[in-house]
Amino acid sequence: MFSHVFCSIEQWEVDHGKKEKSLTLGERLGVEDLYSLNVWRASVGELLGSAVLVFMLDTIVISSFETQTKTPNMLMSILIGITITILLLAVFPISGGHMNPVISFSAALVGLISLSRAFIYICAQCVGALLGALALQAVVSHTITQSFSLGGCTLTVIAPGPNGPVVTGIETSQALWLEIICTFIFLFASIWLAYDHRQAKALGVLVVFSIIGTILGLLVFISTSLTGKKGYAGAGMNPARCLGPAMIRGGHLWNGHWVFWVGPAISCMAFYIYTKIIPSNHFHANGYRHDFFNVLRALI
Amino acid sequence: MFSHVFCSIEQWEVDHGKKEKSLTLGERLGVEDLYSLNVWRASVGELLGSAVLVFMLDTIVISSFETQTKTPNMLMSILIGITITILLLAVFPISGGHMNPVISFSAALVGLISLSRAFIYICAQCVGALLGALALQAVVSHTITQSFSLGGCTLTVIAPGPNGPVVTGIETSQALWLEIICTFIFLFASIWLAYDHRQAKALGVLVVFSIIGTILGLLVFISTSLTGKKGYAGAGMNPARCLGPAMIRGGHLWNGHWVFWVGPAISCMAFYIYTKIIPSNHFHANGYRHDFFNVLRALI
Amino acid sequence: MFSHVFCSIEQWEVDHGKKEKSLTLGERLGVEDLYSLNVWRASVGELLGSAVLVFMLDTIVISSFETQTKTPNMLMSILIGITITILLLAVFPISGGHMNPVISFSAALVGLISLSRAFIYICAQCVGALLGALALQAVVSHTITQSFSLGGCTLTVIAPGPNGPVVTGIETSQALWLEIICTFIFLFASIWLAYDHRQAKALGVLVVFSIIGTILGLLVFISTSLTGKKGYAGAGMNPARCLGPAMIRGGHLWNGHWVFWVGPAISCMAFYIYTKIIPSNHFHANGYRHDFFNVLRALI
Amino acid sequence: MFSHVFCSIEQWEVDHGKKEKSLTLGERLGVEDLYSLNVWRASVGELLGSAVLVFMLDTIVISSFETQTKTPNMLMSILIGITITILLLAVFPISGGHMNPVISFSAALVGLISLSRAFIYICAQCVGALLGALALQAVVSHTITQSFSLGGCTLTVIAPGPNGPVVTGIETSQALWLEIICTFIFLFASIWLAYDHRQAKALGVLVVFSIIGTILGLLVFISTSLTGKKGYAGAGMNPARCLGPAMIRGGHLWNGHWVFWVGPAISCMAFYIYTKIIPSNHFHANGYRHDFFNVLRALI
Repeated sequence: MFSHVFCSIEQWEVDHGKKEKSLTLGERLGVEDLYSLNVWRASVGELLGSAVLVFMLDTIVISSFETQTKTPNMLMSILIGITITILLLAVFPISGGHMNPVISFSAALVGLISLSRAFIYICAQCVGALLGALALQAVVSHTITQSFSLGGCTLTVIAPGPNGPVVTGIETSQALWLEIICTFIFLFASIWLAYDHRQAKALGVLVVFSIIGTILGLLVFISTSLTGKKGYAGAGMNPARCLGPAMIRGGHLWNGHWVFWVGPAISCMAFYIYTKIIPSNHFHANGYRHDFFNVLRALI
Repeated sequence: MFSHVFCSIEQWEVDHGKKEKSLTLGERLGVEDLYSLNVWRASVGELLGSAVLVFMLDTIVISSFETQTKTPNMLMSILIGITITILLLAVFPISGGHMNPVISFSAALVGLISLSRAFIYICAQCVGALLGALALQAVVSHTITQSFSLGGCTLTVIAPGPNGPVVTGIETSQALWLEIICTFIFLFASIWLAYDHRQAKALGVLVVFSIIGTILGLLVFISTSLTGKKGYAGAGMNPARCLGPAMIRGGHLWNGHWVFWVGPAISCMAFYIYTKIIPSNHFHANGYRHDFFNVLRALI
Repeated sequence: MFSHVFCSIEQWEVDHGKKEKSLTLGERLGVEDLYSLNVWRASVGELLGSAVLVFMLDTIVISSFETQTKTPNMLMSILIGITITILLLAVFPISGGHMNPVISFSAALVGLISLSRAFIYICAQCVGALLGALALQAVVSHTITQSFSLGGCTLTVIAPGPNGPVVTGIETSQALWLEIICTFIFLFASIWLAYDHRQAKALGVLVVFSIIGTILGLLVFISTSLTGKKGYAGAGMNPARCLGPAMIRGGHLWNGHWVFWVGPAISCMAFYIYTKIIPSNHFHANGYRHDFFNVLRALI
Repeated sequence: MFSHVFCSIEQWEVDHGKKEKSLTLGERLGVEDLYSLNVWRASVGELLGSAVLVFMLDTIVISSFETQTKTPNMLMSILIGITITILLLAVFPISGGHMNPVISFSAALVGLISLSRAFIYICAQCVGALLGALALQAVVSHTITQSFSLGGCTLTVIAPGPNGPVVTGIETSQALWLEIICTFIFLFASIWLAYDHRQAKALGVLVVFSIIGTILGLLVFISTSLTGKKGYAGAGMNPARCLGPAMIRGGHLWNGHWVFWVGPAISCMAFYIYTKIIPSNHFHANGYRHDFFNVLRALI
């Protein structure tokens, strides 16, 4: 993430000479990124990073609940926080450390990366999540696959009851609200620190990524404890992570799957509007080259 | 908070030329802030920050007590401390990182911000808290809403007993004393570090905010453990946080609600007097432009 | 690891004058390392480090399961993480801190060390692991040796059942997948940080080694919890560590022992391909002197 | 420890002018240290440090086993690790922070201090341990003194059985091996970091002493859990600590007491040979002035 910040600043200073308004829609959308070998190479980092992320997250979920502890979701949250921090550190120098369509999309809206790059990254993340879910299926026994739904994002689960199978879980509207709110908190409280170059520089990579990991762990803890319903696997906050297991396992994992895409998308838009409202000295006065508002302006 | 410190220092140096005494009451009260777009924009940060804060605090309270741990209020206090630290870091570059009428009011008394700005901020915080409580209501089930009073600040709770409903909790005077003492400790032990620009610079943003988070977590732990009464939800130390759930839920949350506003207000005044008594080399000798004493002088 | 990075950079700069292509196969393979006293001396560090590592890891496994805790594999994982971090710090200034054929082999592929040095190190590691297993046998009672298989890497174990001995454990293919995936995650998420000189410098030795220890602890926790089968001792991620107890104890420890060599080897090759695909500014544009691709080119 | 490193370097540079070979045996042995008031003064630090160490360690052992926890040796190990780290920090600026004949002897072999100074230190440590054991006897009740053998180092214990008293514990050879291996790991994995001036500088005092404490705690945990025999009190790794209680309590504490002196001595010699074999750029090429090899050479 930082690399894009610095990168964009340099670029911005270079471009400052020519008139900002003269940029075409293609330049605003960053179409040239589609032909850039470096972007595709970086997307390999995203792909493998997402695969590792999905594999780790899902195995952590399973391991935590297999461990004979009274507080499995607390253990799970702590391990998820640590894992995400470390993976961000590992992937950050290669592609900027996204591994999450939410980060790629919000970074594109804010203008740190182009929409084209974000599109490539998000595709890579989905393929990576698929690979991660496949890897998981290869190593766990059938019983675990059944009872844990491959660690996917579920709203409801069909459990055998005394009078035939019973559907337990939460309502779709409740899940959508949780998804929107949790993803917004994630963007507002942690990703924002990485995007604001003044903060990112002052705090350093390690602290910023630790904060991101902590906030995600906290939100996972809250969203799983809050509802207290067995079928709900907590807020996704990462559509790619939810897509992988759903594609491999299918079935009830597709029920309400759109929630895990629509919720974060709404949060990203809300977050973008927030960054436009607050005092503008955090970013460059005219916004970044790829800023969504500038894209719209170029479109019209 | 720091930004205001530095901001004020620069302003102060600029203003140093003209006679301090020539400032009108309007300038002392910072009426121009009411028309400043930047102040209103910053208040959006306060609004959303307070909403996130209320949502997080209340979900942490609920999650901690839902978790099968023997020490829920310890877990709760740790998570609250971490959350507040991270949110302060996120909101600080936008508005100074208040999210709490206590901080805004005490900053205005000391003169770091104008009373006008503090008024806008406090309104924004109350609206934010309302939004946070609404968001909470959208994602939790009815049973939890009932048993946890939306995580609001309560003195007493009406529990069903064998001989009809029984009111359990603490007395209003006890709650008021707890509120005054805890808020004063909060100001004295942590906020003071952020206001004293020498300390704030020496320690750095991360350390100061961690100290604030730690102190608040500690006070929450102490005030909940101390009384050991089920109905009392611990010292508020943040009137906005208490207002949100009370407006949404109503009912017994309004009982003694004034305690959570009067207590902190008394503490802020006491803290302001304290800063006037101690050796004055921590702030500028004549106080800041918006110092409450100067406001009073301009008034008379 | 770092020392090799910096070392190679200096060397690279010195060698930069002469044409890179003029290097012979012998120079690419680093045959001169075979006659270098310093390499052999450093391998003593590897030998003793591996011996201590095997002794510590195996005693930690036994101690954790002897302790009356409900979550022995969590305790085990934490202690393993701490031990590996400290041992890496201790051996790093002597030989670069490998103590693991996976690290030596991947470092040779990437070109940080020569294949000759890697060969010497791996031999030293195997001898060290043998010594460690011998040391373990000297201090534990016969009962413990029997029930814990000397802390070796097992896929299956023969347990006495009501109807004669029963083999419990996991399938070979499942174990191979776990080995490949876990070792790749280990390389991708932690070792990579040590190989990328920009990251290694920015984070510092202590942080990088802590990350390596944390990731290994996490992977041990996951791989032991995930399968939930008593006979499987978790992913090896270190062939030398598995070889030692197998040579001392023999018997069923040899069953599927090839998995612990083939799996990591595949992961190292995959990791090497990954480092070739991602944007090349992390290493020197032409690769290091001992880069595997350059070795192949010199061969043909 | 560090102080000796730096001290020796300065001295070495001063002495570099005169021929190293011209040093007499007396200078090599550091006989002048015997008449140095500063050395004797520093030894008071060692004496009191060892007294405090023995008192703390032994009370920790007793407290841990008196506490009704299922995992007393885990608690004990953590507390021992913390205590040793803090005491090292406290005594380090006075005498270099030994409080353990193993450290003094190995430092003398490596040449960081003279054999004379090591001799004075070891005597002071033994007297200190005696005082610590006396202090312990003064504060604990008779029952505890009986059942815990004053926290001394025991191989076997005579427990009352149904058919007269029974001796339980481990064999002497097993204990000797444990002593040698654990002390070597202690030297190899932690003390080495303090002796190598490059590492010691890079990591800082706090990290190095924390590592020493962690490793010692870990080894105590392992050596007590591993054997699972009630009579064996774990590896000593500090002969002075074992001597104190033995002199006060006598009896079966003298059984196999030589193991706690001979084992560490062998480990120190092995560690010294190891530091001679590894690439010599860690210490000065010719070794320190008091290096044991130079002492031998001066002798012949």
